[in-house]
Amino acid sequence: MKKNDRSIGLVKTQYFTFAEPPNEMVLQSGEKLGPITLSYETYGRLNNDRNNAVLIAHALSGDAHAAGRHKKTDRKPGWWDFMIGPGKPFDTDKYFVICSNVIGGCKGSTGPSSINPETQKPYNLSFPVVTIGDMVKAQKELMDHLGIESLLSVAGGSMGGMQVLEWAIKYPDFVKSALPVATTSHYSAQAIAFDEVGRQAIFADDNWENGNYLDRGVTPDKGLSVARMLAHITYLSEEGMHLKFGRKLRQKERYGYDFSLDFEVESYLRYQGQSFIKRFDANTYLYITKAIDYFDLVLEHGSLQKAFENASAKFLLISFTSDWLFPTSASKAIVRALKINKKTVSFCEIPSAYGHDAFLIEGAEIKRLVDGFLENIHKHECRKK
Amino acid sequence: MKKNDRSIGLVKTQYFTFAEPPNEMVLQSGEKLGPITLSYETYGRLNNDRNNAVLIAHALSGDAHAAGRHKKTDRKPGWWDFMIGPGKPFDTDKYFVICSNVIGGCKGSTGPSSINPETQKPYNLSFPVVTIGDMVKAQKELMDHLGIESLLSVAGGSMGGMQVLEWAIKYPDFVKSALPVATTSHYSAQAIAFDEVGRQAIFADDNWENGNYLDRGVTPDKGLSVARMLAHITYLSEEGMHLKFGRKLRQKERYGYDFSLDFEVESYLRYQGQSFIKRFDANTYLYITKAIDYFDLVLEHGSLQKAFENASAKFLLISFTSDWLFPTSASKAIVRALKINKKTVSFCEIPSAYGHDAFLIEGAEIKRLVDGFLENIHKHECRKK
Repeated sequence: MKKNDRSIGLVKTQYFTFAEPPNEMVLQSGEKLGPITLSYETYGRLNNDRNNAVLIAHALSGDAHAAGRHKKTDRKPGWWDFMIGPGKPFDTDKYFVICSNVIGGCKGSTGPSSINPETQKPYNLSFPVVTIGDMVKAQKELMDHLGIESLLSVAGGSMGGMQVLEWAIKYPDFVKSALPVATTSHYSAQAIAFDEVGRQAIFADDNWENGNYLDRGVTPDKGLSVARMLAHITYLSEEGMHLKFGRKLRQKERYGYDFSLDFEVESYLRYQGQSFIKRFDANTYLYITKAIDYFDLVLEHGSLQKAFENASAKFLLISFTSDWLFPTSASKAIVRALKINKKTVSFCEIPSAYGHDAFLIEGAEIKRLVDGFLENIHKHECRKK
Repeated sequence: MKKNDRSIGLVKTQYFTFAEPPNEMVLQSGEKLGPITLSYETYGRLNNDRNNAVLIAHALSGDAHAAGRHKKTDRKPGWWDFMIGPGKPFDTDKYFVICSNVIGGCKGSTGPSSINPETQKPYNLSFPVVTIGDMVKAQKELMDHLGIESLLSVAGGSMGGMQVLEWAIKYPDFVKSALPVATTSHYSAQAIAFDEVGRQAIFADDNWENGNYLDRGVTPDKGLSVARMLAHITYLSEEGMHLKFGRKLRQKERYGYDFSLDFEVESYLRYQGQSFIKRFDANTYLYITKAIDYFDLVLEHGSLQKAFENASAKFLLISFTSDWLFPTSASKAIVRALKINKKTVSFCEIPSAYGHDAFLIEGAEIKRLVDGFLENIHKHECRKK
């Protein structure tokens, strides 16, 4: 980690539209989708050899805005700002960094809340169910559009890490290195269960209107908020919640003996729920959680070992001790499969009480690891030329 | 465990009403409640010395019906039937076993859905918030009513275990032995968080009507169902869910690419939610989860050590390896506090993949432990006479 890392400063979201009918994209389900717009941001410049590009893949509630600020007055920078910028691990003085909102998303890319050009109404649930594979396939179209001939690295945490794995497997020659952080080759039954309860919370909201809430001018805020509160617990850890909240009461000396608000942790969760509904679409929540639940490299390839047979990227996997949603054991299973295939793989489990959220928080540790890894890849790739 | 244990057979729920105005019961909050009805069941007979009584305390969604059947055609017996009956650990040939539905409940005891005699309408949210201490205080009234002069044992799992601890602390001379199973002296921040999301799911249901759904002839089924589905995940374990469901699909060969139903675990959870709403009241769910969240022996007594200073019961604590809602560490903390106070305490962690639900499932192991423990207590108490 360099001491003089700086912000990338002001950035702008861009848009790329492809798969115009009759050339729709064929999805994993067999259904077709088009036209498709991807919103994306880029930081730094593509070099003349077109080989300094780094793709960043976002998590469930993430978006294309990974670094910098849209306006000087923005309270917060992009979601992985500590990783991306001049002097940072994804050094924009050296690399051309791209991040795009996934298809199915609600942050500028085509998703269930987009207008279906055929009907001039929102897709709602007529939007086809997309997969992590579909997200990556659409990203590949964007890479081609940007003139990128190979990716020095693909990096991302959580669902972003699933995309990283998919990239390394589906486009082995294109991807020089892969950085799957806090991820898994497939969700556990427990993780699917949490997603399902979140979806049921949305379905349960009368304002969901069978997915047609946009047509009725309402939004299933209560259901989406409950889904987010629940998910948020799974992003933290028991230990982290104990350290942060414990049984502390919220601005009171004794129990209220009512249902208003007693504990700090209740206040925190309610805040998380309320702030989420301002920035996220309920149907997209359904689609993205489904894509995550469906991701299963074992099912698709027969075994994890077979899944990585043809991968040629160098891997660095990172997990976090207290992450119970994407546990270290899941990363280790991938490391094992890569090693059996004699791939180049590094792995580090970072001690952290932040649970799954650690990939958005443990800046110093992640930066240190990624910095060294990426610089080696970069040197190696330059030497080849 | 005896080989010839038998069912207690047909049983009947009884009712006891006390705290008639102006002699209402004073609750921990300072509010008054009365009259109070407790529904309860008894199995076996009180001996002449009135010293063979065993009190069983139930968990969140439990009730007074702990053993036997109400009708011969009942599909299932009471919730702890494997523990209670002739020849079983709570041997009804030897002991007089009592189980009562807690106040705040919805299974015959006075709770938010009861008719407030003053208004002739359901209490709804005008029902006072009750605590574990209040539940136990009401049970003590029932013991007095039944002519019980001491309890050979108080036993229960989960919230039942909290009542056991409360009994041993508040009525030290009355309680000869205590059997807290899969319980804790206080909920963690994470456990409170899960309860809070469950409550928010109920609040989010338009049919909840600010708690007045009974007056409107509706029920917040969707919200209560979501709350139960979520809670159910916390009663299982990651390992147990993996073994039982894994990523198995429900009656299909491939993903449905829609939101109907893909995984077995989704089907199971939906079933749990749907069956729960047929047997439980949403407001009671709010009250009971609040009572659980409020339970905190450290807050009440200054420390766990101080909490057990005056307890004179002999203790057997049982926990289960995969229980992450009431983890072994919580039982161990209680054991430590008891040992510092030089109390007689045994502790066993039972290996199980069933998570918190193990206290309702791991019959053979629990029976073996409780059988020996209780027989010793019984012999000891008889010898004293």
